[in-house]
Amino acid sequence: MSFSEHHRAALVEIMRWRRDVRHFRPDPLPEGALETLRQAMDLAPSVGNARPWRVIRVRDPELRAAVRAEFTRCNAEAAGVYDEEERQEYLRLKLAGLDAAPEQLAVFTETAPEAGRGLGRRTMPETLEQSTAMAIHALWLAARAANIGLGMVSILEPARIAALFDAPESWRFTAYLCLGLPEFEDDTPLLHRADWQRNLPTSWEDR
Amino acid sequence: MSFSEHHRAALVEIMRWRRDVRHFRPDPLPEGALETLRQAMDLAPSVGNARPWRVIRVRDPELRAAVRAEFTRCNAEAAGVYDEEERQEYLRLKLAGLDAAPEQLAVFTETAPEAGRGLGRRTMPETLEQSTAMAIHALWLAARAANIGLGMVSILEPARIAALFDAPESWRFTAYLCLGLPEFEDDTPLLHRADWQRNLPTSWEDR
Repeated sequence: MSFSEHHRAALVEIMRWRRDVRHFRPDPLPEGALETLRQAMDLAPSVGNARPWRVIRVRDPELRAAVRAEFTRCNAEAAGVYDEEERQEYLRLKLAGLDAAPEQLAVFTETAPEAGRGLGRRTMPETLEQSTAMAIHALWLAARAANIGLGMVSILEPARIAALFDAPESWRFTAYLCLGLPEFEDDTPLLHRADWQRNLPTSWEDR
Repeated sequence: MSFSEHHRAALVEIMRWRRDVRHFRPDPLPEGALETLRQAMDLAPSVGNARPWRVIRVRDPELRAAVRAEFTRCNAEAAGVYDEEERQEYLRLKLAGLDAAPEQLAVFTETAPEAGRGLGRRTMPETLEQSTAMAIHALWLAARAANIGLGMVSILEPARIAALFDAPESWRFTAYLCLGLPEFEDDTPLLHRADWQRNLPTSWEDR
């Protein structure tokens, strides 16, 4: 397989237009969309081919409400660490789309998978969580290519989310993903547009 | 921006043909290729837009030799934990391309970045390392689209690699990347082909 400029241009456009979306329309996702996203995760790299990501599609309204309550609690605590001016700015940011997102996925990492037979993670067990992060990125790009918005929510306490989902002892909570059709299109990422943090270039040096 | 089937097909093809490459031709990368890879990292998501990835392009032959020695040491120790039959199988796997890869990148994560102003990582500081993992995945896809192979080496001791590069206290070693033109094309991922670990589907349940 040899890729051409056509593939490279498509990839860069998808990456350039990937967004962290927090404003969703409540409409359901197109038929088959979730299956496409699941397949994208299947194509992600993983240490030793261990594929440690574990996904729960959250449909139960009570579970959703419990996650939302956890977010609200953690977000209020997070706001408290900023000084008054920054706190007002923080509180203006919309950091979750938990109220409207029609699809919600709780993503965990199996920290003791049989698959992979331990390969490549003896000195760096964190490679399992790196693998899950890459699988989320694969899903994110596939979502964007399908014109579906994704917001990754990390203002949560991992242990409490694991307890909420009665996750096995060896699962570690990685991220909560909100998915849906975006309410509007951004030409500038949200945090850049909101003046929270502008885009800095990658730090890259030669030795 | 609205993406069409053309973009989705290109993305899936690139993801499907992404490989962990360990067999490189020694030829240098095409002119401008590294800059393309750096730009792909710039497009990765990051918590609070903190962009915590830090990249060192390793050219110094002494540094390369030191990394190679560290890999050899860790790999021998890793082989030791398997029983005899599995150990022979392990030792037949080629797990690094450090001898031939014309380009090598040491990737670190800044665990205390100013950028992002702490947003989104109070309860989950690991979101910084998730961000770096996603940036590596972005670079990996861009490399594949440019017909460049990438092997991610994690059989290394993070603290020793950080010391080797005299990294700041707040940097954590994330991965060592070998890049080059692949020696051959696989239609099956290496670990699957070598019967180490077949491809399992993503675990996905509804609640």
